[in-house]
Amino acid sequence: MTDTPRTRADDRTEAIRRTTLELAQEIGYAKLSIEGVAARAGVGKHTIYRRWPSKGALFLDAVLSPQQPDLDYPDTGDVMADLRTQIHHAVDLLGRPPFGPLFQSLIGEAQHNPAVAAELNERFAKPQEAKTVARLTKAREQGQLAPEFDLDLAMSILTGPLFFTLMVTQEPVTHEYVDRVLEALFAGMRPRP
Amino acid sequence: MTDTPRTRADDRTEAIRRTTLELAQEIGYAKLSIEGVAARAGVGKHTIYRRWPSKGALFLDAVLSPQQPDLDYPDTGDVMADLRTQIHHAVDLLGRPPFGPLFQSLIGEAQHNPAVAAELNERFAKPQEAKTVARLTKAREQGQLAPEFDLDLAMSILTGPLFFTLMVTQEPVTHEYVDRVLEALFAGMRPRP
Repeated sequence: MTDTPRTRADDRTEAIRRTTLELAQEIGYAKLSIEGVAARAGVGKHTIYRRWPSKGALFLDAVLSPQQPDLDYPDTGDVMADLRTQIHHAVDLLGRPPFGPLFQSLIGEAQHNPAVAAELNERFAKPQEAKTVARLTKAREQGQLAPEFDLDLAMSILTGPLFFTLMVTQEPVTHEYVDRVLEALFAGMRPRP
Repeated sequence: MTDTPRTRADDRTEAIRRTTLELAQEIGYAKLSIEGVAARAGVGKHTIYRRWPSKGALFLDAVLSPQQPDLDYPDTGDVMADLRTQIHHAVDLLGRPPFGPLFQSLIGEAQHNPAVAAELNERFAKPQEAKTVARLTKAREQGQLAPEFDLDLAMSILTGPLFFTLMVTQEPVTHEYVDRVLEALFAGMRPRP
């Protein structure tokens, strides 16, 4: 495996991302500005605009670039246990400081910035969906998932309730809550015959 | 039933809300300002600040006040059909212009404005949850819902997947999609014995 050598431009990009996160954590996303990031990072604001077209684009890249959060699914052979492990991990990351409030601001920004929404989808939702479908496909082959379960719905059914709680009711999402949601999704709402 | 007579102040409040919605539809929430609303409504901006502490608070009140969207559940005796009807109605309202983009901006604002988040919860999520739980409680009494189904989860399980789709992947939520989600939630993910 050959590593591409890091250039000075890479280091500067990295420093601007890091500064963006630091500043967002200190003053909040609403008050964050490209001017503020440029001043603290010691670069001209045109250096920033050359790479990132808007504050939203810079922020998204800063939040999603550093060590891509490892949200892979384990495979112990027990799909319920593996979903539980992965979703506990995801809510620990997305639902709490330091990353939680940044992620929440990113979702907020995506509501009025279509370019940010598209990139959030491309860089976050779609890769997560692919992992989820892969893990569930295996479970289905092993008879742990209803054969008729519609895998296209997997991502929104499994993560929708947690997003709703984090973003709309804004209550904390505990591991216990995740477990209850999973149990309800697996059991279904219809009475068993 | 006695009607409280409308005062001139009520009319002015109503006019400011209406102007806020009009302007938000024309220029988008990001560019909306209290100054802009005041100018168009022909009032001083202090008149607005006296009643609404922030742009977010004004916007929330403007979006949620007019003829409260009627998102009641019908009761035909068939819980699945009634959920379908109500959720179709809700996504027609929340997922499309003219109301959809306003609602989406409101969710966006709630991600960095805790006062707006709290009021969104109080005026939108909680009343909807109460209606959902009431309809499902009746279904449970009639044997149409699994007796062990956890009603505290009903709101996030039923609406979470739709919010995830509207807010994160930002794909259109069709009636057919709603039906598939409901079918999956009722059937459950676990293989039937």
